[in-house]
Amino acid sequence: MYGDGGERVAVVAAAMTAFGERDAWIRDLLAEAGDDCLSAAPLSPPAIDHLYVSNMASGEFEGQTGTMNALAHDLGVTPAYAARIDGTSASGGSGLHAAWQSVASGASDATLLVGGERMTHRSTAEATDVIASLTHPVEYKHGITLPAFAGLTARLYLDRFDAPREALARVAVKNHANGTDNPHAQFRREVDLETVMESPTVADPLRLYDFCPITDGSAALLLCPESRAREVADSYSVIAGVGGATDTHVVHERPAPTTMGAVRDSAATAYERADRSPDDVDVVELHDMFTILEVLQSEDLGFFEKGRGWAAVEAGRTDRDGELPVNTSGGLKSKGHPLGASGVAQVYEIHRQLTDTAGARQVDAEVGLACNVGGFGNCATTTIMEVPQ
Amino acid sequence: MYGDGGERVAVVAAAMTAFGERDAWIRDLLAEAGDDCLSAAPLSPPAIDHLYVSNMASGEFEGQTGTMNALAHDLGVTPAYAARIDGTSASGGSGLHAAWQSVASGASDATLLVGGERMTHRSTAEATDVIASLTHPVEYKHGITLPAFAGLTARLYLDRFDAPREALARVAVKNHANGTDNPHAQFRREVDLETVMESPTVADPLRLYDFCPITDGSAALLLCPESRAREVADSYSVIAGVGGATDTHVVHERPAPTTMGAVRDSAATAYERADRSPDDVDVVELHDMFTILEVLQSEDLGFFEKGRGWAAVEAGRTDRDGELPVNTSGGLKSKGHPLGASGVAQVYEIHRQLTDTAGARQVDAEVGLACNVGGFGNCATTTIMEVPQ
Repeated sequence: MYGDGGERVAVVAAAMTAFGERDAWIRDLLAEAGDDCLSAAPLSPPAIDHLYVSNMASGEFEGQTGTMNALAHDLGVTPAYAARIDGTSASGGSGLHAAWQSVASGASDATLLVGGERMTHRSTAEATDVIASLTHPVEYKHGITLPAFAGLTARLYLDRFDAPREALARVAVKNHANGTDNPHAQFRREVDLETVMESPTVADPLRLYDFCPITDGSAALLLCPESRAREVADSYSVIAGVGGATDTHVVHERPAPTTMGAVRDSAATAYERADRSPDDVDVVELHDMFTILEVLQSEDLGFFEKGRGWAAVEAGRTDRDGELPVNTSGGLKSKGHPLGASGVAQVYEIHRQLTDTAGARQVDAEVGLACNVGGFGNCATTTIMEVPQ
Repeated sequence: MYGDGGERVAVVAAAMTAFGERDAWIRDLLAEAGDDCLSAAPLSPPAIDHLYVSNMASGEFEGQTGTMNALAHDLGVTPAYAARIDGTSASGGSGLHAAWQSVASGASDATLLVGGERMTHRSTAEATDVIASLTHPVEYKHGITLPAFAGLTARLYLDRFDAPREALARVAVKNHANGTDNPHAQFRREVDLETVMESPTVADPLRLYDFCPITDGSAALLLCPESRAREVADSYSVIAGVGGATDTHVVHERPAPTTMGAVRDSAATAYERADRSPDDVDVVELHDMFTILEVLQSEDLGFFEKGRGWAAVEAGRTDRDGELPVNTSGGLKSKGHPLGASGVAQVYEIHRQLTDTAGARQVDAEVGLACNVGGFGNCATTTIMEVPQ
């Protein structure tokens, strides 16, 4: 196993674009974050060995493929090896997994990861349909989309664990509050509990403010061996462990739909590689595509007992000034969710927190965790980061 | 760098479906090769740590995404980590690169790579258009497709190096002859020089028989550390080195359009990692999407002097009984080219040759090389394999 004497991988630079409605196509979005990351990096562009692009569906959204090769050209890093990594809505986490492996294997001494997606030029219905193409065709033909799954799961969770509907709304309130301090967030405004609770129903019992928006944006990270980071970088964070996992592709085959098996299993791998436990974690970015997902993940990652994640939110334990700040970035809910960018932007936030560069969002943290989810828990990656020893 | 004491990666099982027109969607094609590979493997399904799917465009071709997560479920390898790797027409080589890194980094002790594409349900024009979405939009708007680039490059090559048109036709004749002995090939029939030379013009001076077909199909490989292969497998091959590279995204910006820079640069990395030179190589699979590409690659990989690859073909030096057999599988030309499968099927062929299981196609070989090309040389991967020491 990696970690038994192998060299650790560091993040030495990070950047992200403004998330929101952007009048720019995918290549420009990717190049914007990529350029900013290289500009902030202690390595010059010609030193890049590998370039990974996290992106789910630029072909479906824009009729444009081959973006990784185009980006290598746009960033001036040819002849760097380039590939696109797709993990559906967890493409960012999958890209991080690939980038980490490229350095951990010794194949690359400097890997640039850029995740991005352009979506807002399509209607919400069209974008939802592209995303739904990841479901089983039988589910798809029955009109099941990810929001529909979320509604069904939320109802089951509230019933099974005797949780109040307001607890889910509190996730949105918290993440919007956090997002007001994130200059890159799509929505930089607070919402109150009443606004969430009275917003239009989308998939009962979930309402509009339980859902993340459709977003354009991009984020980038530069990875290299820790020995090199020590030499060239003033500050950096360390990828202590990464894990990825899948769950049943057909959601109704899961033994307990209120447990996200891919989250649990990816975390088990990440914790083992990092030699860490949930108790060690100080700050967390979760995949709150829907409010219910943040609650489920907070349980399946081992932070709270199953069925009690809602109570932790209600008690303010996951607030920025709570014992375990969750989604200091604003999360997908407030920051936005450009599919391929989200997992990269999660690690961007953890990197900022661990390098004391999170500005108004700064919390006290030495270990951070990011969990990126694909589909309705069809796959997930968990990344554990820490400050250098 | 990997190789300085790191453990080597072995291929312990390989499988591929029949290539051709298949009445099966992408999930079934991937599962067919994946199942066959697992059945042939000395490891059982629950032992799979990582699953990579090489595929360019199932979303564009079939409206289906998330195939890697679906395949994990279909093969019964959940909760294995799964990701899709896209390198456009070199997706297979990019998947091999990712799978190799997963084992070389220690992140996975058993990685299944499955490459596939379904294309024949779309018209040739539609399929060509999907592929052309990888070009620069300015090139695309001018109607430039990959076949058009091939015609322009062939004309330049023939002029610049005083090569006869028939030499390119000889590539097709050779590869069709090889394909007659490949039970998986789309076209198992010989063609003569006259048939190629008199076939309809597609992109002057190239004619129909200079082009590979549109194909459905899938191929799979199982990778693990060599130490494990030694314990569990009766026979296996070793991935001695893999390299990937990009070239200018806009083809007209290349200093010498008759040189494939990504092929040259990816090979330099692969040769260095494998500690091998072109002279060591005994059998080769090249990306003959167009006949001219086989000639260019045979030069840019260092087998023949620039401008003399055509003469080697004419002299029979790359025939199956020549000094350097090229495309014993029949190549993309005769075997077919399901985009995401091709790079995996190339390594399948080299693995068969090195494990003495290539049947009627068997040649005497201890070192093999596969080169997979994306776009019109926008990217490439080169893989060098060898028999265990």
